[in-house]
Amino acid sequence: MKLVRINLSSKDILIEPLPQIGKFPLGGRAIIDYLMTEFGTPSCHPLSEKNLFIIAPGFLSGTSAPSSGRLSVGGKSPLTGGIKEANVGGPVGQKLAKLGIGAIMVEGKSKDWVLLKVDQKGIFFEAANDVVGMENYSACEKLRQKYGDTVGIVITGPAGERKYLNSTVAFTDTHGRPCRHAARGGVGAIMGSKLLKAIVVDDTGTSLRKPADKEAFNKAVKATIEALKTGPYGISGDFLKNYGTPGIIDLDNARGSLPTNNFHAGKFEKSKNINGLKMVELNKERGGITGHACMPGCVVRCSNIFHDNEKRYLTSGLEYETIVMLGSNLGIDNLDAIARMDRRCDEIGIDTIETGCAIGILNEIGLFDFGDYEKAESFIEEIAKGTPIGRILGSGVEVTAKIFGIERVPAVKGQAIPGHEPRALKGWGVTYATSPQGADHTAGPVVDDPLSPHGQVERSRRSQIINAAFDATGLCHFTFLYRNPEIVIPMINAFFGLELTIHDLYELGKEMLRQERTFNLKAGIGQASDRLPDFMRAEPLPPNNSVFDVPQEEIEGFFNF
Amino acid sequence: MKLVRINLSSKDILIEPLPQIGKFPLGGRAIIDYLMTEFGTPSCHPLSEKNLFIIAPGFLSGTSAPSSGRLSVGGKSPLTGGIKEANVGGPVGQKLAKLGIGAIMVEGKSKDWVLLKVDQKGIFFEAANDVVGMENYSACEKLRQKYGDTVGIVITGPAGERKYLNSTVAFTDTHGRPCRHAARGGVGAIMGSKLLKAIVVDDTGTSLRKPADKEAFNKAVKATIEALKTGPYGISGDFLKNYGTPGIIDLDNARGSLPTNNFHAGKFEKSKNINGLKMVELNKERGGITGHACMPGCVVRCSNIFHDNEKRYLTSGLEYETIVMLGSNLGIDNLDAIARMDRRCDEIGIDTIETGCAIGILNEIGLFDFGDYEKAESFIEEIAKGTPIGRILGSGVEVTAKIFGIERVPAVKGQAIPGHEPRALKGWGVTYATSPQGADHTAGPVVDDPLSPHGQVERSRRSQIINAAFDATGLCHFTFLYRNPEIVIPMINAFFGLELTIHDLYELGKEMLRQERTFNLKAGIGQASDRLPDFMRAEPLPPNNSVFDVPQEEIEGFFNF
Repeated sequence: MKLVRINLSSKDILIEPLPQIGKFPLGGRAIIDYLMTEFGTPSCHPLSEKNLFIIAPGFLSGTSAPSSGRLSVGGKSPLTGGIKEANVGGPVGQKLAKLGIGAIMVEGKSKDWVLLKVDQKGIFFEAANDVVGMENYSACEKLRQKYGDTVGIVITGPAGERKYLNSTVAFTDTHGRPCRHAARGGVGAIMGSKLLKAIVVDDTGTSLRKPADKEAFNKAVKATIEALKTGPYGISGDFLKNYGTPGIIDLDNARGSLPTNNFHAGKFEKSKNINGLKMVELNKERGGITGHACMPGCVVRCSNIFHDNEKRYLTSGLEYETIVMLGSNLGIDNLDAIARMDRRCDEIGIDTIETGCAIGILNEIGLFDFGDYEKAESFIEEIAKGTPIGRILGSGVEVTAKIFGIERVPAVKGQAIPGHEPRALKGWGVTYATSPQGADHTAGPVVDDPLSPHGQVERSRRSQIINAAFDATGLCHFTFLYRNPEIVIPMINAFFGLELTIHDLYELGKEMLRQERTFNLKAGIGQASDRLPDFMRAEPLPPNNSVFDVPQEEIEGFFNF
Repeated sequence: MKLVRINLSSKDILIEPLPQIGKFPLGGRAIIDYLMTEFGTPSCHPLSEKNLFIIAPGFLSGTSAPSSGRLSVGGKSPLTGGIKEANVGGPVGQKLAKLGIGAIMVEGKSKDWVLLKVDQKGIFFEAANDVVGMENYSACEKLRQKYGDTVGIVITGPAGERKYLNSTVAFTDTHGRPCRHAARGGVGAIMGSKLLKAIVVDDTGTSLRKPADKEAFNKAVKATIEALKTGPYGISGDFLKNYGTPGIIDLDNARGSLPTNNFHAGKFEKSKNINGLKMVELNKERGGITGHACMPGCVVRCSNIFHDNEKRYLTSGLEYETIVMLGSNLGIDNLDAIARMDRRCDEIGIDTIETGCAIGILNEIGLFDFGDYEKAESFIEEIAKGTPIGRILGSGVEVTAKIFGIERVPAVKGQAIPGHEPRALKGWGVTYATSPQGADHTAGPVVDDPLSPHGQVERSRRSQIINAAFDATGLCHFTFLYRNPEIVIPMINAFFGLELTIHDLYELGKEMLRQERTFNLKAGIGQASDRLPDFMRAEPLPPNNSVFDVPQEEIEGFFNF
């Protein structure tokens, strides 16, 4: 596999073997951590030419391993000021991996808007002017007209062009729609600052990567698929195929961990209007699709395609986090309105989590009433237009709070807390507090003994370590394989001809977290930032009326490995 | 001397003896450092009830020591997130000291807007509703109508009420006008968050504080006044009386250290239209005053009263930093326009340095043309109105840069770099980089060998240590006595009956800086924040074409004491 190093200032392209650490093939978040450690500048301004923009498929991407096409986007975060890995599905990861590309690392800044074309013949710079300024769907349509329907597209929207702290990098799905987003940490602004509008990936002529031991690999893949289908792994099995990630709304609502009304409650009275059952019902009526695979070879199929009430395509990947943060967190129970907002966020290229959180806090100062979806939609249009209020909201919840003098900010390290309430999921809260990524829903989920403060730091540590390692593999979070990670070892060994143990996978995860922590310390983000907002220790959260009470001293011992 | 502890949540008032450290009477910045260390919460949100709002006159305030009435305002800065001491002149420091008050420390939050009345009878809460929402001049007029013309007023303006990060605490001058501002770090927002609108100080019936050794004290005071008048101490003597702080413009312009056009140059072609001579000329024509004393007993008299072209009072304290940051830094050479902006900033209660810096960077994205004073004035009106763009600018330069995706930010620790260019005053640049206060023009001036990178860390260290100690005394920066600090020792010893040496004064300064540093470290602001923006190391500054090249490793050794 290759590392493609691109300097946009000089327009130099260097192609090198992809680095490894010890025995491990690196990929995804691991290669981002490695490259940021080797070539990153922790003190640099995130919008400067010194920052790196990195995309990297997981090390199993492009193989027949199930649900292995996740891709990581990284750099120094414009939102948090720390290291950032934002994870995304869709087929682009597989396409890059099939082209033999393990990572693309972009340095410098272009003078004019540029686009990268990547195919079997090589890597080429092309002018991007004809899609600059366009929203994501029309831009991708135009690019597919030019480059063909089968290309995968990586693109930053108007938000990234304007360098919003809340801007995403969009990836096309299997239908060529830019509905999969590496959404967190403002990674779109890194692209925007480099005047890199898009990367077009054409894998025509490639095939799946070849395993070292074909027979053993096929057997291991089969065993993994079997395991996923019979599903002792958490809530996998058919649950996600049948209800998608919106199915999780009922679980969180039942345990009181569903962010509601700007984190003032953990249970949403009207959750039935926005849950998985409701989505399935509307999909049946309108011809939408539940059980949609965001990438080829996915056996989980947790995604969906959502139609409007005139049975026309509206959005895809109307996922749990979006429905919670733009729905229950805003007191909004209108799934159509949430879907419209999701589409608009995808068009502009902004994170639905950060956007919902930023709109939510406006309730504190009387600028937003819970349930007022028309107002929420109008705020998103302001973001689209780039008006001053739109730019404020496009800068995320922490900056919005600063602008309006709001003290109660649901964020860690400058990044909005996502859709699982730390006061009712205390182990997950430890993850939000300590992850070098800031408050992040995939960095290390913990659901055990959710209301107890005891043992949560160790649970979060174990979860963060193994989830970091999984973010290197390209295997999707929603396989829930991280709960039984032994099962993936035979696949890795057979594919690469190695003799790794589960211990090696844990060591990889630890090393990744250490690298991220070290980068952050050099960037000035240390232990003082490893904490939840004070209000979560002070305000009891209904219906459990629990506060976050994991001792801060224990949290400060998180990095003991 | 007394420490007055006020809890605005419970409305409790506690009066205790003012704490001392070792032999020293504490005052000003030293008592702020002490109280923040003892009672502050480094991790708290600056707008939370846990933050402290402290005002403290220097330990020589209220005595006949010349120019000794400076007062310090402190807390955890809403702008920088670190410890903050903002320094201010005017007569209020002396009034408080004559009332026997060494510090007022406010905790908690009031439920309704409140005002504190302080006089010989005690400390009283009064309703503040009738001045809430008013601009500072009319609010102070109303308060003087109610409380008498001789009271001193401490007040936060509309900006502080709205908790702008760039809001000030205004202090009345000898004419009762709110033209003296503890301007830096957003201290007004701390008052605003506590719903504390104003403090009215009535020193009727008090007299100057009594020295332990009257004869020796009077002799030492006389010697100090003599020294100031004959003036070997830097640029003191009659220079500041004759030209005011605007006289310094020629010095900085000549050495190429005058921030011009958003820190793109160090020399302003049109400086003659905004310098001290120009101000003197206009004052003569229009009946303004040069050589005005901001506080009784000042022998420096560096302040001024500025009239408009119809010979009416316009503003007072039209000082160097304001003229530079709203003038040359914006390419504006119209002193009347600058004076109007100064008045408007004083009315709203915002820092002229931070405001000028924030407007300046808008040039980077085409929203402001250098020299366009009408546009600059209109931006300040937006700040006054609280429109979204006004709120953005009212949040200071760093937040403004985030909102508009601007990478080139002239700030350290989130606070705008003031009117002395670090690339042409490299020792002063070290002070900006390392001061726990963020970029601060009084924290430790260094003018020696300004273009050389050598020896500047040690120069800055010595300057910061002695200036910290001077910020405890209440002696004005513009006495320049910190350049020959031995001279003040006899005054201190005679007043307090001590036998201190200059060594003790240095030790006080060191301890203050250590306390500030420790607070910041606990608040998450460490060595990674001790740096100037990268562009100052990369872009040569005309006319010297110098970059800031003091080695970062040497800067990182600043706190070796």
